[in-house]
Amino acid sequence: MSERPVTPLLDQVATPADIKQLSDSQLVTLADELRAETISAVSETGGHLGAGLGVVELTVALHAVFDAPRDKIIWDVSHQSYPHKILTGRRDRIRTLRQKDGLSGFTKRSESPYDPFGAAHSSTSISAALGFAVARDLGGACETGLGDAIAIIGDGAMSAGMAFEAMNNAGHLKKRLIVVLNDNEMSIAPPVGALSSYLSRLYAGEPFQEFKAAAKGAVSLLPPPFQEGAKRARDMLKSMTVGGTLFEELGFSYVGPIDGHDMEQLLPVLRTVQARASGPTLIHVCTRKGKGYGPAETRRDGGHATGKFDVVTGEQKKAPSNAPSYTRVFAEALLDHAAQDPRICAITAAMPDGTGLDLFDQRYPSRCFDVGIAEQHAVTFAAGLAAAGMRPFCALYSTFLQRGYDQVVHDVAIQRLPVRFAIDRAGLVGADGPTHAGAYDIAYLANLPGFTVMAAADEAELKHMVATAAVHDSGPIAFRYPRGEGEGVEMPAQGTPLEIGKGRMIQKGGRVALLSFGTRLGEVMKASEALRARGITPSVADARFAKPLDAELILDLAARHEALITIEEGAIGGFGSHVAQLLAENGAFDEGLRFRSMVLPDIFIDQASPADMYAAARLNAVDIEAKVLDTLGIARMSSQRA
Amino acid sequence: MSERPVTPLLDQVATPADIKQLSDSQLVTLADELRAETISAVSETGGHLGAGLGVVELTVALHAVFDAPRDKIIWDVSHQSYPHKILTGRRDRIRTLRQKDGLSGFTKRSESPYDPFGAAHSSTSISAALGFAVARDLGGACETGLGDAIAIIGDGAMSAGMAFEAMNNAGHLKKRLIVVLNDNEMSIAPPVGALSSYLSRLYAGEPFQEFKAAAKGAVSLLPPPFQEGAKRARDMLKSMTVGGTLFEELGFSYVGPIDGHDMEQLLPVLRTVQARASGPTLIHVCTRKGKGYGPAETRRDGGHATGKFDVVTGEQKKAPSNAPSYTRVFAEALLDHAAQDPRICAITAAMPDGTGLDLFDQRYPSRCFDVGIAEQHAVTFAAGLAAAGMRPFCALYSTFLQRGYDQVVHDVAIQRLPVRFAIDRAGLVGADGPTHAGAYDIAYLANLPGFTVMAAADEAELKHMVATAAVHDSGPIAFRYPRGEGEGVEMPAQGTPLEIGKGRMIQKGGRVALLSFGTRLGEVMKASEALRARGITPSVADARFAKPLDAELILDLAARHEALITIEEGAIGGFGSHVAQLLAENGAFDEGLRFRSMVLPDIFIDQASPADMYAAARLNAVDIEAKVLDTLGIARMSSQRA
Repeated sequence: MSERPVTPLLDQVATPADIKQLSDSQLVTLADELRAETISAVSETGGHLGAGLGVVELTVALHAVFDAPRDKIIWDVSHQSYPHKILTGRRDRIRTLRQKDGLSGFTKRSESPYDPFGAAHSSTSISAALGFAVARDLGGACETGLGDAIAIIGDGAMSAGMAFEAMNNAGHLKKRLIVVLNDNEMSIAPPVGALSSYLSRLYAGEPFQEFKAAAKGAVSLLPPPFQEGAKRARDMLKSMTVGGTLFEELGFSYVGPIDGHDMEQLLPVLRTVQARASGPTLIHVCTRKGKGYGPAETRRDGGHATGKFDVVTGEQKKAPSNAPSYTRVFAEALLDHAAQDPRICAITAAMPDGTGLDLFDQRYPSRCFDVGIAEQHAVTFAAGLAAAGMRPFCALYSTFLQRGYDQVVHDVAIQRLPVRFAIDRAGLVGADGPTHAGAYDIAYLANLPGFTVMAAADEAELKHMVATAAVHDSGPIAFRYPRGEGEGVEMPAQGTPLEIGKGRMIQKGGRVALLSFGTRLGEVMKASEALRARGITPSVADARFAKPLDAELILDLAARHEALITIEEGAIGGFGSHVAQLLAENGAFDEGLRFRSMVLPDIFIDQASPADMYAAARLNAVDIEAKVLDTLGIARMSSQRA
Repeated sequence: MSERPVTPLLDQVATPADIKQLSDSQLVTLADELRAETISAVSETGGHLGAGLGVVELTVALHAVFDAPRDKIIWDVSHQSYPHKILTGRRDRIRTLRQKDGLSGFTKRSESPYDPFGAAHSSTSISAALGFAVARDLGGACETGLGDAIAIIGDGAMSAGMAFEAMNNAGHLKKRLIVVLNDNEMSIAPPVGALSSYLSRLYAGEPFQEFKAAAKGAVSLLPPPFQEGAKRARDMLKSMTVGGTLFEELGFSYVGPIDGHDMEQLLPVLRTVQARASGPTLIHVCTRKGKGYGPAETRRDGGHATGKFDVVTGEQKKAPSNAPSYTRVFAEALLDHAAQDPRICAITAAMPDGTGLDLFDQRYPSRCFDVGIAEQHAVTFAAGLAAAGMRPFCALYSTFLQRGYDQVVHDVAIQRLPVRFAIDRAGLVGADGPTHAGAYDIAYLANLPGFTVMAAADEAELKHMVATAAVHDSGPIAFRYPRGEGEGVEMPAQGTPLEIGKGRMIQKGGRVALLSFGTRLGEVMKASEALRARGITPSVADARFAKPLDAELILDLAARHEALITIEEGAIGGFGSHVAQLLAENGAFDEGLRFRSMVLPDIFIDQASPADMYAAARLNAVDIEAKVLDTLGIARMSSQRA
């Protein structure tokens, strides 16, 4: 562990009220100490580093000028909120970030009154802030009071349709609302899209030095003793605008762009806006992701997310990996098919690295589309490509695909278009917690007519499923796989298309059949070993498909066993529910079948290690073993849980 | 039936190829005939009238200039596509619109090669068109060939985030792509939002007459025999631009605004764009919804949707109603609560009339929010209001709520915020067909931790559920109800909050228990009567809640009957699946329980009368009766189905 930084000023800050006692020059020093503390903390915990470092000055300035928690400071995505957490009474727990029972890596209402609205997915902050602003003007009440509503949103997040919807509505309602556009020319990957070019043009014309002088002038007008002062402040605000027509057309006053690392610009501008803004106001702040920490600044993604690292060298302390990640297996398999088939193309929504499609983009840039944070468009764009005879793979995280659900139903499923959905981060994800846990995709896809839904039991299966999807032109198809490393199984030289709707027997046994869907198969096999020691050898099958179901296999298992237990890493309504429906329709319950369906529990599981999360979800081998024993009515001699 | 209009030119048009033989002045006449034919057809079938009448000239001009089906003409939402259908080989079936086995009220790939991409929900057209354009430039192939991609999108639809995402991506990719912005200052209701004001400002500055002269000049340059001509045409196009900065900032060339009912503007502009456009081009066309038919033009919604009507008077032929619609019962109940409680507010996404919130807006305009076609924002805005202590009711159709699914999960459920979801059009909807059939909401909501999910069995129950939701502050709550009239039951003077998670016994019987969720209860009771005639009196219960389930009631029913059958108007994964999970976990299947779950079938059911659709779904009394007999192993003496 590195030595802790020396932070005399920061040590005096217990809550934002303490910040308000500091002079402007002390605020500069506070920002430096806050940056050092953030680097130090993340070096111990790992997590999102670059985003927080980019907003250190902005965080200090916001808390110096605004009055949280009465004023609602809402961080979009909120992986930039670590400095905010340090300043709002959570410094003592900052080194528990993203750990079990520790601080969340995101803002969270239940964690602090200074987090008025939690986040983790992008582009929600303006909508939420508008809700607070409207409630305030309606005379609403909440425990911390209702003052200003301030959304801080990145340029990448601003490109999502949801942010546009919120801006459009805010411009219409004309309520006082403050949006800080944190423009670091970076979402996670470098941003794409026309909006990004537009912002760059504004940025290129930046008159930072001139602006600085104007901003300094503005501060002398505050607080406003006279009407004259008020008018001059308004004129000053107006003169700060050097562009921003697009935002002005949407009904916002535009201020900026300003240098987000220069307190001499940040403080006067925020003070002026705080004192003077009437309707919706957008402050365009330019920052640098990873600012002030060399190893982060120089990385392509600005040090977006990191493991634990050495503060001096920036070197990450990574556990050695035993197997390739599922993400990488998918990406490499897709490359193989793309080499053979020019119809294959790939779509990502601002996650080229996370989905592994950066490899595809390097090899086949004309067939790889990063559409920005725009899942709705991603899905229908893929549907258009499919209608035009291409073979699109739309690679999204399970929870982000929720953003495009209507498009999946309306544009893909109803039209039976062969869009391939590669669903990464399916199941529990560890440190990112419940907002990123892919729990619902099986349920929300498998009840769509004509859909084929697969889950890979291991990385070799994933390779076969990519091959299956590549040649499946008769309708939409999805395959899901988890975050993290594979099982370490032997990999086939190439994937072989699977027969649609056919599972596979893994092991024949008696009394109980375990029917697994997805990567819990490894735990099922461990449970099987433990049961064998008790004299019970279960049959084990890998369903491969939640839709269409392998009715023959499942009904045969039901007929030949006292008990049938399904296991999946998804919420109720998915694989197990489809199996139950099949069994019911075929009268399998009529004369008695000990059926159980093991699914993710009906709770949002907080961040923890994957092992702890699986324990909380009761989907480990020990839980499967216990379920078998309970189901068969066998008392457990040495029960591991009371 | 009115006399058919005289349409000598239209009679010569079998396919768009025939249009290309006509002179410009003949095209004007063709448009007049097409308008008359559209009015005549819709007077017989009912349907969406205003939107089609607004684009008659545009439709003729597009087919005169572009080469469908090679060029892809993609109508956004597509309720304006009736004139397009008449011109593309479907005139002989146009009087079957929206009827069983007839033409769909929307574009549909399976219906015609002239419908390259179906629609019904808004704002998908640009994404789809971009898919076609990109596939074309990648050398893709589809049966009809790949030429130009043209999206025609209304100003209301343009305000949705999805359209912005697509524009942003298209501006970045710089492919040749044509977007026609059909600006009628109207979506279904008058449009809202800052974008709408922006368009109005462009429109207000319209130099239609000057533009007309310029457009006429442009046509003389085509076809371009010389380079000089090409340059002059480009300059001409440029001079046509009088505004449109917002679209230009997004990377589009902007042309317009032009009068969309004037062929002398439409034809030269489309021809110039067709001959000269290189990158993404937006043509801003101003039209009038309901144009050319007085009774439609004068209605507030431009004659958006209509029943069958008398062509001369415009009077609609409505069947007399027997009971208030569910929509109206919801709206009036909400008004009652709003009168007592200033925290209650209401949110609609561009459907004030469809959701009944027009009443709320009249009475409490400061608490009613029409956010535009913006379901993602609607949900998170509601979450913000809830976090600020308000009691927001978010009223959306079941299928449109799919647009905000991630926001429901991420912003509402995970934060346990008490947003009230009033889910209209839950279940089958008749003439609007599968795109509007609310099949998935039970499944996609009931597996979210902390959610309360109700369905009303009749309009009195709905009133109680509104009351239940009004006071439920401990987490999110949803209640679903179908399109159309109530059951005609006696209405309570006011709603009474229900006990959360408690169902109600309707009738005690033996052998089989029928457990209904939602409005199929009426059919269940009819089935019960028919069974009684056979000597079987089923127990009948109304579950009221899919979550939390009434475990006591359900397990008691299971224990006391040979068979338990659930009935719901939703897809698999919903109520029946939750009941199955409860039964399995409690060992109810272990010794035998004849369990069945009646759900919507695994097909998209095409438009038809509600009665025909329920028959197709096998959710009528006769189907329930048959299911009981089959489940109990009783042969049907006079089976109604072979």
